[in-house]
Amino acid sequence: MPTTGNLHAVVMAGGSGTRFWPASRAARPKQVLPLAHGQPLLAATLARLDGLCDPDNVWLVTNPGQLDAVRRAVPDLPEGRILIEPEARDTAPCIALATAAVAARDPDAAMVVMPADHVLGPADAFHTMVRRGRDLAADDRTIVTFGITPTHAATGFGYIEPGQQLDDGEPAAFHAERFREKPDRATAEQFVAAGMLWNSGIFVWSARGIMAAMQESSPELLAATEAMRTAFSGGGATGDELAAAFRSAPKTSIDYAVMENAPAIAVVRATIDWNDVGGLAALADIGSDRGDGNHALLVDGAQDLALESKDNLVFAEGDRTVCLFGVRDLVVVAVGDAVLVCPRDRAAELKKFVEHVRAKGRDDLL
Amino acid sequence: MPTTGNLHAVVMAGGSGTRFWPASRAARPKQVLPLAHGQPLLAATLARLDGLCDPDNVWLVTNPGQLDAVRRAVPDLPEGRILIEPEARDTAPCIALATAAVAARDPDAAMVVMPADHVLGPADAFHTMVRRGRDLAADDRTIVTFGITPTHAATGFGYIEPGQQLDDGEPAAFHAERFREKPDRATAEQFVAAGMLWNSGIFVWSARGIMAAMQESSPELLAATEAMRTAFSGGGATGDELAAAFRSAPKTSIDYAVMENAPAIAVVRATIDWNDVGGLAALADIGSDRGDGNHALLVDGAQDLALESKDNLVFAEGDRTVCLFGVRDLVVVAVGDAVLVCPRDRAAELKKFVEHVRAKGRDDLL
Repeated sequence: MPTTGNLHAVVMAGGSGTRFWPASRAARPKQVLPLAHGQPLLAATLARLDGLCDPDNVWLVTNPGQLDAVRRAVPDLPEGRILIEPEARDTAPCIALATAAVAARDPDAAMVVMPADHVLGPADAFHTMVRRGRDLAADDRTIVTFGITPTHAATGFGYIEPGQQLDDGEPAAFHAERFREKPDRATAEQFVAAGMLWNSGIFVWSARGIMAAMQESSPELLAATEAMRTAFSGGGATGDELAAAFRSAPKTSIDYAVMENAPAIAVVRATIDWNDVGGLAALADIGSDRGDGNHALLVDGAQDLALESKDNLVFAEGDRTVCLFGVRDLVVVAVGDAVLVCPRDRAAELKKFVEHVRAKGRDDLL
Repeated sequence: MPTTGNLHAVVMAGGSGTRFWPASRAARPKQVLPLAHGQPLLAATLARLDGLCDPDNVWLVTNPGQLDAVRRAVPDLPEGRILIEPEARDTAPCIALATAAVAARDPDAAMVVMPADHVLGPADAFHTMVRRGRDLAADDRTIVTFGITPTHAATGFGYIEPGQQLDDGEPAAFHAERFREKPDRATAEQFVAAGMLWNSGIFVWSARGIMAAMQESSPELLAATEAMRTAFSGGGATGDELAAAFRSAPKTSIDYAVMENAPAIAVVRATIDWNDVGGLAALADIGSDRGDGNHALLVDGAQDLALESKDNLVFAEGDRTVCLFGVRDLVVVAVGDAVLVCPRDRAAELKKFVEHVRAKGRDDLL
């Protein structure tokens, strides 16, 4: 099998979700919250790369508003490896920016691209999975995705339909037949029954390969990438030239811009434990089991006490104790200047409450 | 009608209830919480005496552990008017102490005795009611109590059965036939149907009269009172002599020691709005109406936000916002280093949770 150049890792850390509010705020995004066994998700994501690629080949993409929080969460990352999106334009421009930076430095690079805010492991299984992807992407035409075997009919994820198995390597890899966006409940059940996989949002490709795929699917995206690459090569990485090129990229997701049209997409069936930490309901998985179905994630000295309480989720930070008496199926978040109480089965609608906070003029809480 | 001497007011501020936990703590009792429209209950109780008796005749009984909090809540009260119980021994020794102090200074005094932690008003109706009691107590044999017309079959109060009306004065006064302790629900319903009144815990008597009643019902209590009076007269008010006399008083309530046996007890049917602020459920009355049946008591900059939430009670203090999304019938308290969430219909059992806090070794929260 042909070999590619060095492996570069790109961590996308620009998310500004509100699904962990009030733990997450505009200037304190989910990826810097200590949701990975007390460690910031972002720090855990970078630590997971140890032994997989040269530390000098680790890149992080974020945005100006989150830069301070990101720097605090991963103080050891060299300044030159932090790429700053001039504005939020979804994942396609983000990947164009990272591809341009990597290709400017290392035209033969292989790249693994991943979100900053997932919990996954163990690290060695992750390494095995990425190396498998890298081998497949040694053929520049192959774009590699990673699918997670569903544990339930989730409506919060995209799905990938695996087709013909590509070879007898491990973990198993398949031709990716179709990408499906987040389904409704009934459709999700069909997807799961049909053996479809959750789209993990992790990709492996060669720099050359993703640019070739852009050329096929979205020449504007390739043009933006090439313009940014030129800017990086000229050393103007933070200048107006780079920003203008970034803004010329179509504001869309990489799935839509490339994945849904690319001819040779592989899906590797991941053999890792994976949690996208998509919202407060994830506390049931990432929080400590406190008995009676209660789970708590307690940070910086926070404590909890529960009596005759069952199946609650708690997130608390700082010098305070969350006390539950006679309640069940609640989410209680006590972080900074806000306390949130909502039923567990409404945590997924948190965005609605955040809009209420905004409508009430309480942007100070966002 | 005969007249008595000057009116002295005695405010009993030694309560150490846990029914407002975690807003109330051992060193921060309910009576210093800003539950009276943002003012400490104790301060509101003292303010209510303006125009009723000379400020120099206002006495406050507290205990060593709460002295600092009490001084902060009512900084203007002269040091010499604060009486300190050497230990908690229920209301009979407390009243013995206050009676001794008052009688040592003013043997002809009339006294109005009241808890520090009730919300009641308007002040002019309170004044009218107390003056009516004072007129009745001009006959030293008469001990005056005040009954509240029940609004529901409360199980948290004692009841007084009014008998024959005493005269045609206003507010109406009756011979008090019987004192009944806190009833169960069915009994409470009978009491209310029978026209019984809630015992407000407010009393009026002459110093001479209460000592005469002690002599009838509890000579040990009178002996303790006389011994303390001697100590006060000798100027040894904070000394060992006083403490020893206090400890010699029977550890019981004034209701049990005197009221249930005294021959001439009057009950004045009060014409005031009265709330004993007996626990967190009282937030429904003393908190601001926030719409949808939600009530909040917000102190020192605390705020609240609610969406699709109904009939909740919030108490928050300091720079924080309590956010309710999709919940109902909860009590949420966010004060200092504790957040409590419990169903409204279990607030009355809060003592059970406080015991749990203690059992878990978290005395720091108490």
